[in-house]
Amino acid sequence: MSGSWGKKVQYTIFGESHGKGIGITIDGLPPGFEIDLAEVTRELERRAPGKSPLSTARNEKDAFTIWSGFLNGKTTGSPLCSIIENKDQRSADYESLAWKFRPGHADYTGSIKYKHFNDLRGGGHFSGRLTAPLVFAGAIAKQLLRQQNIHIGSHIQRIASISESQFDAVTIDQTILEQLKAKSFPVLDPAAGESMQRCILSAKTAGDSVGGIIEAAVIHLPVGLGDPFFDSLESTLAHLLFSIPAVKGVEFGAGFTFAQMRGSQANDAMYSKDNLVVTSTNHNGGILGGISNGMPLIFRVAIKPTPSISLEQNTVNAKGENVSITVEGRHDPCIVHRAVPVIEAAAAMAIWDVL
Amino acid sequence: MSGSWGKKVQYTIFGESHGKGIGITIDGLPPGFEIDLAEVTRELERRAPGKSPLSTARNEKDAFTIWSGFLNGKTTGSPLCSIIENKDQRSADYESLAWKFRPGHADYTGSIKYKHFNDLRGGGHFSGRLTAPLVFAGAIAKQLLRQQNIHIGSHIQRIASISESQFDAVTIDQTILEQLKAKSFPVLDPAAGESMQRCILSAKTAGDSVGGIIEAAVIHLPVGLGDPFFDSLESTLAHLLFSIPAVKGVEFGAGFTFAQMRGSQANDAMYSKDNLVVTSTNHNGGILGGISNGMPLIFRVAIKPTPSISLEQNTVNAKGENVSITVEGRHDPCIVHRAVPVIEAAAAMAIWDVL
Amino acid sequence: MSGSWGKKVQYTIFGESHGKGIGITIDGLPPGFEIDLAEVTRELERRAPGKSPLSTARNEKDAFTIWSGFLNGKTTGSPLCSIIENKDQRSADYESLAWKFRPGHADYTGSIKYKHFNDLRGGGHFSGRLTAPLVFAGAIAKQLLRQQNIHIGSHIQRIASISESQFDAVTIDQTILEQLKAKSFPVLDPAAGESMQRCILSAKTAGDSVGGIIEAAVIHLPVGLGDPFFDSLESTLAHLLFSIPAVKGVEFGAGFTFAQMRGSQANDAMYSKDNLVVTSTNHNGGILGGISNGMPLIFRVAIKPTPSISLEQNTVNAKGENVSITVEGRHDPCIVHRAVPVIEAAAAMAIWDVL
Amino acid sequence: MSGSWGKKVQYTIFGESHGKGIGITIDGLPPGFEIDLAEVTRELERRAPGKSPLSTARNEKDAFTIWSGFLNGKTTGSPLCSIIENKDQRSADYESLAWKFRPGHADYTGSIKYKHFNDLRGGGHFSGRLTAPLVFAGAIAKQLLRQQNIHIGSHIQRIASISESQFDAVTIDQTILEQLKAKSFPVLDPAAGESMQRCILSAKTAGDSVGGIIEAAVIHLPVGLGDPFFDSLESTLAHLLFSIPAVKGVEFGAGFTFAQMRGSQANDAMYSKDNLVVTSTNHNGGILGGISNGMPLIFRVAIKPTPSISLEQNTVNAKGENVSITVEGRHDPCIVHRAVPVIEAAAAMAIWDVL
Repeated sequence: MSGSWGKKVQYTIFGESHGKGIGITIDGLPPGFEIDLAEVTRELERRAPGKSPLSTARNEKDAFTIWSGFLNGKTTGSPLCSIIENKDQRSADYESLAWKFRPGHADYTGSIKYKHFNDLRGGGHFSGRLTAPLVFAGAIAKQLLRQQNIHIGSHIQRIASISESQFDAVTIDQTILEQLKAKSFPVLDPAAGESMQRCILSAKTAGDSVGGIIEAAVIHLPVGLGDPFFDSLESTLAHLLFSIPAVKGVEFGAGFTFAQMRGSQANDAMYSKDNLVVTSTNHNGGILGGISNGMPLIFRVAIKPTPSISLEQNTVNAKGENVSITVEGRHDPCIVHRAVPVIEAAAAMAIWDVL
Repeated sequence: MSGSWGKKVQYTIFGESHGKGIGITIDGLPPGFEIDLAEVTRELERRAPGKSPLSTARNEKDAFTIWSGFLNGKTTGSPLCSIIENKDQRSADYESLAWKFRPGHADYTGSIKYKHFNDLRGGGHFSGRLTAPLVFAGAIAKQLLRQQNIHIGSHIQRIASISESQFDAVTIDQTILEQLKAKSFPVLDPAAGESMQRCILSAKTAGDSVGGIIEAAVIHLPVGLGDPFFDSLESTLAHLLFSIPAVKGVEFGAGFTFAQMRGSQANDAMYSKDNLVVTSTNHNGGILGGISNGMPLIFRVAIKPTPSISLEQNTVNAKGENVSITVEGRHDPCIVHRAVPVIEAAAAMAIWDVL
Repeated sequence: MSGSWGKKVQYTIFGESHGKGIGITIDGLPPGFEIDLAEVTRELERRAPGKSPLSTARNEKDAFTIWSGFLNGKTTGSPLCSIIENKDQRSADYESLAWKFRPGHADYTGSIKYKHFNDLRGGGHFSGRLTAPLVFAGAIAKQLLRQQNIHIGSHIQRIASISESQFDAVTIDQTILEQLKAKSFPVLDPAAGESMQRCILSAKTAGDSVGGIIEAAVIHLPVGLGDPFFDSLESTLAHLLFSIPAVKGVEFGAGFTFAQMRGSQANDAMYSKDNLVVTSTNHNGGILGGISNGMPLIFRVAIKPTPSISLEQNTVNAKGENVSITVEGRHDPCIVHRAVPVIEAAAAMAIWDVL
Repeated sequence: MSGSWGKKVQYTIFGESHGKGIGITIDGLPPGFEIDLAEVTRELERRAPGKSPLSTARNEKDAFTIWSGFLNGKTTGSPLCSIIENKDQRSADYESLAWKFRPGHADYTGSIKYKHFNDLRGGGHFSGRLTAPLVFAGAIAKQLLRQQNIHIGSHIQRIASISESQFDAVTIDQTILEQLKAKSFPVLDPAAGESMQRCILSAKTAGDSVGGIIEAAVIHLPVGLGDPFFDSLESTLAHLLFSIPAVKGVEFGAGFTFAQMRGSQANDAMYSKDNLVVTSTNHNGGILGGISNGMPLIFRVAIKPTPSISLEQNTVNAKGENVSITVEGRHDPCIVHRAVPVIEAAAAMAIWDVL
């Protein structure tokens, strides 16, 4: 099943790229919460395509309709179902057996799993478009977290060969996170950001695409969130992050760099300051033993290059014949910047669930 | 809650390092399965300490007793509970308020979460010792998978600054995996392995510790395992892998290296061969759209350096006072080689659950 | 949370009586299943009001729209979301503090639970109207079960003081179940049915309402469905049946009558016949030890009288003041006959989940 | 799977009647809770056999050992595993194919489900003996509830043809519940109790058995527990109650009697008294719309007669041959009085889970 996640809140996703619509049901929201719908729309716009040469020129309008659980501007406590109607649903005029499985996509695996009955148009249920409902849900989770002074933000830490510094895991604060949120291409270093964008445009010119790394921080978490073993905070976050198409790696704190450290360097020394226990470094990314320690929670995700490229590729079709494919249409040469609000949404959903 | 995981099978873990025992209940095993108990013991011995200068000299005997669900050498289909009795449980003669929180451990986060009622001795429920029940469960899962010709194996791909080649993600086969399993320090390249072990001993001499990277492969998976979104194969595997103490990063296929690729390189071209659809490269590590594609499933985990070191460190005690700590006793200068069967166990449990 | 149920299939319900719509998402349906939509509509019509003097004169049109998971007349395997739009949604012109809590309804308990933010209009999310999505889901489950020759049917066994015979738990067959399905007021004995209907009309004339008992049978179940203890077949069925508003009792086989039997009478003697093990009586209603035994599964549910009556009642309003209430509008003097397809739907959903 | 239940707390049961032991793991208990172990033992003794001529003469000693999650007399917050060792485990010297399936037991259904690999000795995992771990868990839940002034009690309302009054659903109070708890055969009316016991002994003399009805009350529940639809308070309670072997019916408040009422009688009029909203009758048994309304929660369960009787019965054996059986050994002529603490335990576990 693709569709449900959460313990405190239950999220149920549905829809296909070229079907009637896509949506999400959120069950377990506190009653009486006043959702800032304008902000939800702004979050959706951060994900939407068609805003710059860096993205596909398709102009999807992600206007949502709330069908339930919301009255007089406030949550009722009953399941809230929100749907984004697909405006451009095309008729089913394709021939599924002639369908060429696009490399790097779920076309082949989905077809085998669903015995060729899945909707292949535009990726169907596997489409990146399904991340719009996640952003919707995450936007609400962010607002709920903000009430408790918990903030989430992120930056593009790498595009192809161009990278910038990671967050300072000890000093990262709300000001920096808000500055990032205001940027259409969120980076700490404007010069690095320029290089990254040139890198994307260069790939676009070549009919190709690029991947990258997003680094996120969650600040002001209370101590004690998460559990040992099966419900570790890393497990919960990674579960949701790996739900996002194109995410192929997740690391917390020093992550894979831990492998090159000695314990004396990796251990974050603790000290008491103003009746709070803090650490002088934060290699563990705010999580010890699967449980938050009050320091900024830091994680990074690897986003693979958009699989849809204009270059010719070898593949098979639904009949099992070897064919070549040139994926038509207008593609995203890079989805990393569009994935930023999705990653933040997943983190917000996960954190709210364990709070 | 720390204790339960799984849909097809439900695993429930319990116990503390210095309590009466540690154990796991496995519910949902097929009835009539003949467990090879000798092999389960061998898997537990792969994890056990005291076998070489690379590990702690403590000589824990991980002898398990099956309490239920097992009759005449076969599973009954009812919940199987297995317990490893703690032979060296010490009396509770410690003073919890004077307890110094060991840096890098869950002492502090656990104490806050459990309001100072948790068992701190030896890490309590957070102890790495709790991975022994995971290895027990994983050993059974491995046997179940083998019946379907699915095999799991892994190697130590990095210790500190010493690394060796990653698996060839296309050609990795059963022979290589079995050769690795036979080694006490599983590496592909013996020379690299020697360097890694010297590196561990050097850290040991310095009273310090090192981390590393384990790379694992699962071969002969059918196409179609896993689901889009919340139950993606990556989500399921990462959930269990991040349950293991000291795991701070998980990546699939090219993982974080994807960030530096172009789509034309990252996409694995598909072709039909002997009525099977295969890919010419395997950057996606056998998973597309959250679903297995029949190619070897490849993942890597980052293991942080053992937090228990002999060097003096700054920390706080349970009263919130700044103190210095020298963790006494005999420590593992490295747990990466002992983590190998744990990582494989988690993978086996996850794969069996979605098979 | 009100919204999700199921292991093999996950059902998520949402919506309010006077909101934009009501719906259900069904995740986990097999791909390629051709849903008979006309039959789904007929099932919904069995539940719909406005068809006879026995029900409210409101003429709700329960036309559903499938938003996802359905292509070219077949399930795709992705989550199927179906919505019934509310045609008569009224503006929010009520004064919630003056709201009088209707006795026997969830008005008061819901208001406390949801801190007065719940939608009270027409019962909101608690409305019996929400059983329409259940009937939708159950209609699909019934079709899936029929493919395996499993059939569900039921009759009104009691209305107020008028009762008819229970099913013969050994001989009940498909012919009888289909005859019942064809009836608008399904009873075994037409004369008893006439009396029951007169009884309903008599209550209606008095501005009052009546309750009743529905007895259902599921035939041709394989042996071995269900589990001991927490997932007993009785637990699973009762969980769903008690989800239905107005259900206040559930019994299997002889049910409460068991209390008056001796073991020698209650035990169903077994014998082998044509290589099948059958029982000569079926007091256990097809379930032994929480597991189906291949005999007809028999259960009964108690439906309380419709709480909406025209007679004056004492209650409190949202300010906590003692007031009297006369529930206005057109009410169902009895919902038992309308509950028949809902009960069958719940049973079908439960059985499909464990099959 | 038989083994896990709960959201806030997760209960995992395991063991067989004649295996090494039976047990339960409870995950999610609050840390620092001081369990009154003597009271836990007293609850287990209420369930234990061998105390009077009304029960089997077997003298099982249900001494439990806590293996984890408990330190210095208090819960640690980690999973608490408790095991009752089986003292009389017999060797596996039975011939399973000659095994005669006992009528009314799970012998046949379990054998089919588990493909003849289940432990048949003494009912194996299906044994009523497995309710001892439930009573252990329920005893802790009761203590947790008592801290919030919530109390659970019950009486035997019927044995065969002998019944006594039901609780006064409005006035039932703590004094009455505690008086019942002190009785070895808990009834409201001593004379009725005498008759019931004579009835049991009469069945015993005849080599037969009897069933009955237990009525329970939970008082001082806050308003707002439970959810609409799939997690209604009735659903949650019934799920656990039907997990108990021999329970074949569950009803809340007026239950099946509702079928004979008119709405004007069934609706509980509400009024405000001392700033509390109460009802003048309590036919709904403290639950409206699946949610507690603050009135006493009242339910009844039907317990079928013990299937183990000395009289000869027809059945089949594991080879499928028609045979006659005389169940040997010492049987309970009635388990209703022994089921009292089990029913209360299930209710306590369910209520604590939703509190």
